[in-house]
Amino acid sequence: MNTYHGQMLTLGIFGQSHSKAIGMTLEGLPAGEKIDLEKLKRFLGRRAPGKNAWSTARRETDDADFVGGLVDGVLCGAPLCALICNADPRSGDYEALKKTPRPGHADFAAHEKFFGFNDVRGGGQFSGRLTAPLCIAGGVCLQLLEKEGIFVLSRALSIGGVWDEGELTSSTAQKDFPTVSDEAGARMRAVIEQARAQGDSVGGRIEVKVTGLPAGLGEPMFAGLENRLSQMLFAIPAVKGVEFGDGFALADQRGSEANDAFCLQNGRVSSPTNHMGGILGGISNGMELTLRLAVKPTPSIALEQKSVNLEDKTETSLIVGGRHDPCIVPRALPCAEAACAIVLYDALLKRRSELYGAK
Amino acid sequence: MNTYHGQMLTLGIFGQSHSKAIGMTLEGLPAGEKIDLEKLKRFLGRRAPGKNAWSTARRETDDADFVGGLVDGVLCGAPLCALICNADPRSGDYEALKKTPRPGHADFAAHEKFFGFNDVRGGGQFSGRLTAPLCIAGGVCLQLLEKEGIFVLSRALSIGGVWDEGELTSSTAQKDFPTVSDEAGARMRAVIEQARAQGDSVGGRIEVKVTGLPAGLGEPMFAGLENRLSQMLFAIPAVKGVEFGDGFALADQRGSEANDAFCLQNGRVSSPTNHMGGILGGISNGMELTLRLAVKPTPSIALEQKSVNLEDKTETSLIVGGRHDPCIVPRALPCAEAACAIVLYDALLKRRSELYGAK
Amino acid sequence: MNTYHGQMLTLGIFGQSHSKAIGMTLEGLPAGEKIDLEKLKRFLGRRAPGKNAWSTARRETDDADFVGGLVDGVLCGAPLCALICNADPRSGDYEALKKTPRPGHADFAAHEKFFGFNDVRGGGQFSGRLTAPLCIAGGVCLQLLEKEGIFVLSRALSIGGVWDEGELTSSTAQKDFPTVSDEAGARMRAVIEQARAQGDSVGGRIEVKVTGLPAGLGEPMFAGLENRLSQMLFAIPAVKGVEFGDGFALADQRGSEANDAFCLQNGRVSSPTNHMGGILGGISNGMELTLRLAVKPTPSIALEQKSVNLEDKTETSLIVGGRHDPCIVPRALPCAEAACAIVLYDALLKRRSELYGAK
Amino acid sequence: MNTYHGQMLTLGIFGQSHSKAIGMTLEGLPAGEKIDLEKLKRFLGRRAPGKNAWSTARRETDDADFVGGLVDGVLCGAPLCALICNADPRSGDYEALKKTPRPGHADFAAHEKFFGFNDVRGGGQFSGRLTAPLCIAGGVCLQLLEKEGIFVLSRALSIGGVWDEGELTSSTAQKDFPTVSDEAGARMRAVIEQARAQGDSVGGRIEVKVTGLPAGLGEPMFAGLENRLSQMLFAIPAVKGVEFGDGFALADQRGSEANDAFCLQNGRVSSPTNHMGGILGGISNGMELTLRLAVKPTPSIALEQKSVNLEDKTETSLIVGGRHDPCIVPRALPCAEAACAIVLYDALLKRRSELYGAK
Repeated sequence: MNTYHGQMLTLGIFGQSHSKAIGMTLEGLPAGEKIDLEKLKRFLGRRAPGKNAWSTARRETDDADFVGGLVDGVLCGAPLCALICNADPRSGDYEALKKTPRPGHADFAAHEKFFGFNDVRGGGQFSGRLTAPLCIAGGVCLQLLEKEGIFVLSRALSIGGVWDEGELTSSTAQKDFPTVSDEAGARMRAVIEQARAQGDSVGGRIEVKVTGLPAGLGEPMFAGLENRLSQMLFAIPAVKGVEFGDGFALADQRGSEANDAFCLQNGRVSSPTNHMGGILGGISNGMELTLRLAVKPTPSIALEQKSVNLEDKTETSLIVGGRHDPCIVPRALPCAEAACAIVLYDALLKRRSELYGAK
Repeated sequence: MNTYHGQMLTLGIFGQSHSKAIGMTLEGLPAGEKIDLEKLKRFLGRRAPGKNAWSTARRETDDADFVGGLVDGVLCGAPLCALICNADPRSGDYEALKKTPRPGHADFAAHEKFFGFNDVRGGGQFSGRLTAPLCIAGGVCLQLLEKEGIFVLSRALSIGGVWDEGELTSSTAQKDFPTVSDEAGARMRAVIEQARAQGDSVGGRIEVKVTGLPAGLGEPMFAGLENRLSQMLFAIPAVKGVEFGDGFALADQRGSEANDAFCLQNGRVSSPTNHMGGILGGISNGMELTLRLAVKPTPSIALEQKSVNLEDKTETSLIVGGRHDPCIVPRALPCAEAACAIVLYDALLKRRSELYGAK
Repeated sequence: MNTYHGQMLTLGIFGQSHSKAIGMTLEGLPAGEKIDLEKLKRFLGRRAPGKNAWSTARRETDDADFVGGLVDGVLCGAPLCALICNADPRSGDYEALKKTPRPGHADFAAHEKFFGFNDVRGGGQFSGRLTAPLCIAGGVCLQLLEKEGIFVLSRALSIGGVWDEGELTSSTAQKDFPTVSDEAGARMRAVIEQARAQGDSVGGRIEVKVTGLPAGLGEPMFAGLENRLSQMLFAIPAVKGVEFGDGFALADQRGSEANDAFCLQNGRVSSPTNHMGGILGGISNGMELTLRLAVKPTPSIALEQKSVNLEDKTETSLIVGGRHDPCIVPRALPCAEAACAIVLYDALLKRRSELYGAK
Repeated sequence: MNTYHGQMLTLGIFGQSHSKAIGMTLEGLPAGEKIDLEKLKRFLGRRAPGKNAWSTARRETDDADFVGGLVDGVLCGAPLCALICNADPRSGDYEALKKTPRPGHADFAAHEKFFGFNDVRGGGQFSGRLTAPLCIAGGVCLQLLEKEGIFVLSRALSIGGVWDEGELTSSTAQKDFPTVSDEAGARMRAVIEQARAQGDSVGGRIEVKVTGLPAGLGEPMFAGLENRLSQMLFAIPAVKGVEFGDGFALADQRGSEANDAFCLQNGRVSSPTNHMGGILGGISNGMELTLRLAVKPTPSIALEQKSVNLEDKTETSLIVGGRHDPCIVPRALPCAEAACAIVLYDALLKRRSELYGAK
């Protein structure tokens, strides 16, 4: 489903890579909040392609055109709806792919799902391009969270086997290439460039950290923050793993290590460690929320790959044309932030009902 | 939310660890299917405590009492509803915990969420005991999947740093201690016993594999199999990470490695590799579905731990009484199978509508 | 679906007329609220059968057994779950109905829906008995609404062609036979008794009025109060029509009559008329909410009726045995109040989030 | 909520009367179905204003611009998304209404709901104009239902107290003014013209009939056809009542009259009467589905009306400018058909899963 049903927010994403337009509707936002459209544009710019050596040469005009929900830049209570027009796609490039699915892409699964009627142009509705409207929705939520003192930060934790070093802070997120260590960032870029030169691609890890999050967000069992965040994060095409706090490393720890003991900090319940990533029982506990994502290498590579011809059922090979990102991690960072922001702002709006009632 | 909204199935879990009963309702199952209640009982037995050295000495009678949805063991179209009565809980043990939250447990988060009105007895609604009704729902779905030739297998992939070896097959799942290598299993049990003797606990990894799954299950974006499975799996209390296919290892691969090239096997589109774990674009592609879970060490340990007194806001320490599993992995295996079965059977029922329409 | 998805509340109803138990789960209620169980019992008593000449001689012990969600009578944040056990149903009475559907009942529709596997005993899941758990959920919501100064009143507006006279007030709702005019009530009872004596039944109209409702409840378009209330009210088996404000009478009015002009009352925006029943654009406007329901005559009558044998496909006739209400209106009144209370309390909880944010 | 969550279909409506565009997304439609865009345009033409004496002189270009979901006119599995651009609205007309709510409109309720931030231009998101995208969604569903032999018909049953005569058939729906009796239609038009000349408006009743509907559609309790249809139909702004089958007239019938006895017709279970309107227990029984709607008189009238000034809290009066329909019934007919089609096609897709499984 292209509709995400939060508790208070409902997000719909529509369009295909080469359809007339892509876009999003987001309903449930509070009326009266002003949206900074310039700030949103800068945020969308972080995801947009065509800027750097490590991203595709394609140029997309990803400006959000708001057709509903705003009056003079202020939310009016109607669903927020924004479009991004798809200008002049060269769909001809993709016609052969209708019968020859690209390895690592959704082509074959989509062909089975939709009985061959799926839109194959540019990956259709499975294209990474659909993260642009996700970033519009998330960019709006990020602004609204920031008004509450909640900040979502991210960095490239590893790319192509090269790891960043140091602690993620708000200053990292402002960087052009978002690593704590600029030296590690330089090595990552070299690994990306090397892969590109060889017609190949590399994957990596994304770290997300949320500061200022109050305790009490999230619901038990199926709508805990972990449940909701992972559900949302796997909507980003290349994500293949999600872990919270120490995540998979917890599998090798003992309870006496992993348990975050409680202490008092300025009269507030806190903990000297944060192995749990700020979530217990699905509910925020007032510590920083931390998570990491596994991002697979870009499936579109320039090397020849084996495939099958779905029409005449023969084995064949193909070369994926066009220019593609040799590493998707840098452009996936704002997507990850956006995804988290939508879930957390939804949880915050739900929490408001509880806090109001508790008074 | 204790309600899981699938596309065709709606699952509700209710009760607290020490309330009169816990239970589940599951609606959307097809009328006319016979449920093998003896087989279900055996499945629930795999999760039940009190059997082995590695599990708690508490004895719970986890028999499912079906109060609705069945007529002579056959689904009648009404919601399936089953109860498990909570016989004679010694709630007194837990009274002190109301003001002193246990590290690693949801106690503090729940206290904040529910303004101190949460049921603290035995962890209340956050208790691992709530996975018993999850297993009832999942056990029913497992039976219905098996009628379609779809099997959900699992094993302890690692415990306390000890890794299993070999390939998971259906024969593994039948074992008392579910590892492929019995030798590795013996070492895992030793690690568990050692932790127990030290008043500590260990975590581990669970591998799940699904065979016989047809292509075309799952929906794009927010309701893909990865989205839905992770949402469901994080409802199991100790799970802190989920990865599909090669998961986090994909972050270190190149596209030319990670992409599963297509080939023909007996005229059917297949692939010699399965790095993607059978899911692309959120949709099953006909390969085996594979995933792994990070399971944290049991938070209830016998060692003294630091906490705070929420009433008088002082730092204190506590010792968690009672007997607890030094490792939750073995009992979490059927929970993981159950969680996957619910999501997959839901997707299968949705797929039936598409297949019927496509004729 | 037996699950009602409000915005903040999720209600599940389970069980069949003759299954071991029926019951309900209600999640999303605020932790910390005390439930008056004696008051709830009195409310359920208004729906219970066997009290009067106009209701069935069957005796049902409709006491709610709370198995989850309460700690010492206080909501703890876990789903509220209550059971009503079905003691000793004489299911044998109904065996013949499996192949011979009763006119006016859901028997045939259910047979088609569930391919003959539906539970026919006592009407199965389509029995009016399932309104007992609806009344548990609604009775709780009524209590919580009353704490906010919101009261849901109802009366028998007409029965068997006899109409009540006068204005519905809170004192009416306390009466044993809830009409404003006792004389009209006496005539209604006579009509009911006459129908009963003839082996027949009569229908009627229910009026519901809600006082103290603030403006701003309900959502635009598909989740307006009219949309939500009608969706919920049609869950009461005999309801075949719903109208708000002047309802169908508006079809014969002119705009200049129907429009409720605005005025000021004690500095508050009000209106001297209330043709719209307190809802415009799906949203409460601060006036009293008024609605009326069409209740069909009880389908179970003692007269011989024509039916078909579904097995051998022949026309036949049947006599519905047992004792049944010759008029369901009096017992349907608390059901209507309950249904409204659930929807309105859900809307109130949603509104709290908006009010908190607006501060 | 502007999102309708069916079981298989999810519909989102966005935009305001004077925002850049209005539109709809509809997801869950089966891939591979061809949409006849010319036929859809004709259907939308029935709702469009500006054609006749009885409708507003405003001219709106209500052509649907599909930006996603179609490839060469064939559904591709991605959400169907269509826009209608709002060309050159003269918003200045409405500025004064921000502080002076129009009687009979949602202005005041919206002002309270959204704390004065609602879009007042042309009624904002509460405008009847939002039924245009509803008709796009419904028009598509009508086409898909017709392929299954299911037809949704409607007529003006009464306008301004003048009633149509005769039985609604498919030929009626083709008429320019959709009444069975042309003579009754002529009298209705005279009543409308008279109201218009007096600066007033009239209401009416709509009858909808659905032929070819198979048994087994709809779900018990909260998602029965009556529940779903009424929820959807109240999204049409002027609707204030819904009744099924004989509806409110059932309140005055006896059980022996109201019960539809079963008979055999060509070996198929049928009934000589249809008081229940084809729905029992919320589920279709194979008879024609019949319902009626109460449509209030257009609230926009040319006469002076009393209101209040929300800013300085004084009583005042206003005259609603512009040209408006003196009767909304004729243009509401396709809206009612559209609303029913969406619900019924959703139920049909759900039913396919059951039928596939039952094989």
